Amino acid sequence: MALINEHFLKLPDNYFFTDIAKKVNSFRVTHPKTRVIDLGKEDVTLPLPDVTVKALHRAVDEMAQQETFRGYSPHHGYDFLVDAIIKNDFAPKGIQLTPGEVFVTNSAKESISNMSDLLRHDNSIGVTDPIYPLYIDANVSVGRAGTLQDDGKWSNVVYMPCSYENHFIPQLPEQPIDIIYLCYPDNPTGTVQRKAELRKWVNYAIEHDTLLLFDATYEAYIREKDVPHSIYEIKGAKKVAVEFRTFSMGAGFTGLQCGYVVIPKELTAATLDGRRIALTPKWERLSHIRFGTAIYLAQRAAESLYTPEGKKAVKERTDYYLANAALLKEALSGNRLTVYGGDNAPFLWVKTPGTLSSMKFFEHLLYETGIICTPGVGFGPGGEGYVQFTAFCSRKECEEAVHRIRHWRIL
Amino acid sequence: MALINEHFLKLPDNYFFTDIAKKVNSFRVTHPKTRVIDLGKEDVTLPLPDVTVKALHRAVDEMAQQETFRGYSPHHGYDFLVDAIIKNDFAPKGIQLTPGEVFVTNSAKESISNMSDLLRHDNSIGVTDPIYPLYIDANVSVGRAGTLQDDGKWSNVVYMPCSYENHFIPQLPEQPIDIIYLCYPDNPTGTVQRKAELRKWVNYAIEHDTLLLFDATYEAYIREKDVPHSIYEIKGAKKVAVEFRTFSMGAGFTGLQCGYVVIPKELTAATLDGRRIALTPKWERLSHIRFGTAIYLAQRAAESLYTPEGKKAVKERTDYYLANAALLKEALSGNRLTVYGGDNAPFLWVKTPGTLSSMKFFEHLLYETGIICTPGVGFGPGGEGYVQFTAFCSRKECEEAVHRIRHWRIL
Repeated sequence: MALINEHFLKLPDNYFFTDIAKKVNSFRVTHPKTRVIDLGKEDVTLPLPDVTVKALHRAVDEMAQQETFRGYSPHHGYDFLVDAIIKNDFAPKGIQLTPGEVFVTNSAKESISNMSDLLRHDNSIGVTDPIYPLYIDANVSVGRAGTLQDDGKWSNVVYMPCSYENHFIPQLPEQPIDIIYLCYPDNPTGTVQRKAELRKWVNYAIEHDTLLLFDATYEAYIREKDVPHSIYEIKGAKKVAVEFRTFSMGAGFTGLQCGYVVIPKELTAATLDGRRIALTPKWERLSHIRFGTAIYLAQRAAESLYTPEGKKAVKERTDYYLANAALLKEALSGNRLTVYGGDNAPFLWVKTPGTLSSMKFFEHLLYETGIICTPGVGFGPGGEGYVQFTAFCSRKECEEAVHRIRHWRIL
Repeated sequence: MALINEHFLKLPDNYFFTDIAKKVNSFRVTHPKTRVIDLGKEDVTLPLPDVTVKALHRAVDEMAQQETFRGYSPHHGYDFLVDAIIKNDFAPKGIQLTPGEVFVTNSAKESISNMSDLLRHDNSIGVTDPIYPLYIDANVSVGRAGTLQDDGKWSNVVYMPCSYENHFIPQLPEQPIDIIYLCYPDNPTGTVQRKAELRKWVNYAIEHDTLLLFDATYEAYIREKDVPHSIYEIKGAKKVAVEFRTFSMGAGFTGLQCGYVVIPKELTAATLDGRRIALTPKWERLSHIRFGTAIYLAQRAAESLYTPEGKKAVKERTDYYLANAALLKEALSGNRLTVYGGDNAPFLWVKTPGTLSSMKFFEHLLYETGIICTPGVGFGPGGEGYVQFTAFCSRKECEEAVHRIRHWRIL
């Protein structure tokens, strides 16, 4: 009799974002004339850059000829892309990486989940609260998160609250934690940590032998100078941190799926009997049994982003969404709401008025303006009292949303 | 202190196929003038079909325009592909499936690994021996396989020997086993099970409440009429079997990565307290936290294979490799070797003469003819005494290999 993984059953049956989608759908059905504007969308709108489209066509033509056809990608990705990544994303910041430390992947989501497989089921984990649910869910299914409590928290997870009270800068935990997830620029709050703040985390990790899993998915949105693009801008981070990157959000590769993970050679985890095991070769080994890498077409597409034209296209796209964020921020603030984030990230994190719940705010907004936002409670207990707006709409939709928000009479 | 997953450490550090690649490499270095022919290659050679190339170019153009741009794929894949799969791969065989039972995936490898996550760590597993190592490795890393013993077997795995003595038809286990992996047409042996034989497995599974994980990766190579293309051709299989498919080996999509998994709605696993849980919604839930699906381009490419031109292209490609297999089989048999497989699969499984080990045969062949094969021992203890030849070379290489084999003086 095949038994199901009992840890997996601990996950609530309904995925929060699916539930929200259902609520939106029932609004659409009952309000067929309303043009719904989706500011809860976690997916890009703008098409691929021209330089990428050209690279894709060329790569497709290569796949059509026996001499230039490519089958399975090398497990760590093609050298042309790994070299471009090291040369462009790290070397200019003084970060020295070798090709064996950079692994091309399909997506940050998959890689974060895969990394969890390399680690023991009873490591303690710490997360910021609110947090994108994926980080915790991946731990639930291997039994690492414990059980879901009435307060919405998992019993074995250390939550580090981020709210307006602490300017969304979580306090360092008092106890040692084995694994800590950090995502900066942060989804959902759209806030960042500056170099001096991130340095505290790296020092904490060095002191307590903590593994930092650093998700830099929204790195391309950073505009302020003292906000690190990579955790490795902090001295000592190579000993304690894995960094996850993706081309999804900067270049609009959500439909292409290409990213990478950096696992420095000096990074280790421990065995029960106290040996230290380098993670780089173990990740390589895991890739043989567990996951593939981005396909050749996507890797050539990613390579195109490192040309001058590609860099310009990424800048234009992220500027576009950041300009949306600025327009929305102005409209929401103008309507007596307190708004955080949006300066270095495509997200706004909005305090609900008074004691209004995030779900109630979501419903009022939807039914009174036809605009979708995401209730903060979907990102954990610390998200209650906030809602998230994303900036991935078209400019036209954004302007229409601004108009509706300006005329919205909030409770 | 982050601890490493101790189960993962049980895997031998060296991946067998990487070791073989190293041996080949050292031969190349010491024999720079020999044109090595790779008949150990598990990747296709022929380029993508024209109809697929056209579909890819069209899809790339769609990604270049805001109106037709596509971001994240739906988690279960696009309807156009799911519908084509059901209509072409199953309906004509009288197998009724609904869209909610078919999930587009990146690859069979990933899906087989992901399925393992849904199941409890202490289920018993059964595999044919020899077997493609992936199935066991995915279980090792979650602790389900036990420990590697001196005889090359994992302590918690039930091995079902397949050899010339039993015509490569494994005997049904005497005890109940929770999960059994079957791959037909089989990699490595290139053999198949006919309908009457597969029916015994389905009946065994129904009787013992066993979950069958059926890998149909090489389905497109089946030529004989009474060999099922799908496990669901057997009555009752929907209650006990998951089927994994990929477009990699038939159409040559190893560089595109698109496949699918079928999880019938009636398929369940049990909880410790005896409840039955349907696997379909759990797979859907897992997809949200664990893995993506094939990208839009790959799904349009896969869709093209269901056109008359696409079907013809798949037939031509598989015919080509099967013709290679036939040429090689004739040459090897002509040189006093006993050869199995190759009629419904792109693999030949060759008995080594006398008591010659598979590794020794590999080395003799490499050093005396410049041809690479794969030592059977890499596929488990039951592979000792055999080597595998794959048929994924070009016809020109195949003819050259035939020539060299004919003139090879085997020990």
